Amino acid sequence: MAGYSTYIELIRPMIEGKTIISTGMTQEVKRVEASIEQALNSRSCAIVSSGDPGIYAMAGLVLETCKLKRIAIAPPGAGLNNLEAEAALEVEVVPGIPALSAGAALLGAPLTHDFAAISLSDLLTPWEIIEQRLEAAAGADFVVVLYNPKSKKRTWQLERAQQILLKYRDGRTPVGVVVSAMRDTQQVRIAALEDLHREYVDMQTTVFIGSSASSRYLDFMVTPRGYAGKYDIGGGKDSDA
Amino acid sequence: MAGYSTYIELIRPMIEGKTIISTGMTQEVKRVEASIEQALNSRSCAIVSSGDPGIYAMAGLVLETCKLKRIAIAPPGAGLNNLEAEAALEVEVVPGIPALSAGAALLGAPLTHDFAAISLSDLLTPWEIIEQRLEAAAGADFVVVLYNPKSKKRTWQLERAQQILLKYRDGRTPVGVVVSAMRDTQQVRIAALEDLHREYVDMQTTVFIGSSASSRYLDFMVTPRGYAGKYDIGGGKDSDA
Repeated sequence: MAGYSTYIELIRPMIEGKTIISTGMTQEVKRVEASIEQALNSRSCAIVSSGDPGIYAMAGLVLETCKLKRIAIAPPGAGLNNLEAEAALEVEVVPGIPALSAGAALLGAPLTHDFAAISLSDLLTPWEIIEQRLEAAAGADFVVVLYNPKSKKRTWQLERAQQILLKYRDGRTPVGVVVSAMRDTQQVRIAALEDLHREYVDMQTTVFIGSSASSRYLDFMVTPRGYAGKYDIGGGKDSDA
Repeated sequence: MAGYSTYIELIRPMIEGKTIISTGMTQEVKRVEASIEQALNSRSCAIVSSGDPGIYAMAGLVLETCKLKRIAIAPPGAGLNNLEAEAALEVEVVPGIPALSAGAALLGAPLTHDFAAISLSDLLTPWEIIEQRLEAAAGADFVVVLYNPKSKKRTWQLERAQQILLKYRDGRTPVGVVVSAMRDTQQVRIAALEDLHREYVDMQTTVFIGSSASSRYLDFMVTPRGYAGKYDIGGGKDSDA
């Protein structure tokens, strides 16, 4: 059992008696290597993430590390015997509810039409690429979900993203800000895009920027799928899938 | 309890004794209106979706319908008493595991970096907008997740999307095709983008088109987060969040 210490603490009651490889936020690579080492020694190992391990999380690093170390891998049940390799492991990724789903549910329904997920962390990705993606997603009218919008060290990226979005979207476009979704410290707010820089945002925050079709209704944010334009809601017509 | 009949059947053992509003695929608007009617008559009503109700699913239509019918809504616990309206309802969206998470987990880790979700259904969205979004997402090197890639009536859209992606991506780019994720009829395949038109794809399929950084390793598809470029996996350096 391996994980960032904060996440290990959240599930402490469920993992009594297990060997725990708990490391800090900044030690993803070490944690994965120690987990793989343990698995190669015939002791199965679970690596925990918050949200979904497949979205901006540990699943990718596990697979990348196996590839770089030339460890053959197969999904559960596929049979390791067919793999001709010195080292071989079964790897299963168990999906979870990603922060974009948890946050969207708390806001209402901002993601019922096309969206783009973009991480503002430029520690592993050059800022020019992030900016290019912000421009493209804004220009093509995607709802934009921002992961890692801000940290103690990374403070200017969110305002830069706001400026890019404002080139394409009205200042009154609704923006959902969800801090620590589904935890005790949860906060859910809806603001206007032009005021986003005034909102409290941290590493545990996901930011949802509406498309031109998104709107706010009371305390909910909604992106319509298009039914209202095509069907007479309240009348007799209906959809056609 | 309301839902598309296929989904109602999947949970039949869990809903014994409940009033069930079950309608066909093409009756989303009627189903939502009947559910709201029931809730307004002081009988709580759950509308079920497969995957996550907030991603291309029913949550948006529920909120849109309340707005159009001028029904005041509040999240659970926020208090309906503050709403000055003739009709008022508590609305809660319960997030689930979206098809993009379930499919990604079965493929490995295609979504551990930026991605765009695009529905190829042009029944409620003009095709020109869909094409614009495909161009933008392809040009900015997003991983692209295609929802509703094909149905009995919509047969040409997926090949058109493939052609657009091929303008920007190598023909050997890995593409994950997941049919009926986590159900008995599940199929998981990884193909090359240039061969996507040869794959079996239906309405229950989600298609994952890799970015220029995505790769295939044995039976897994991976989009690296960037650790390997920055950190010496297997060596002593480590990341910095």
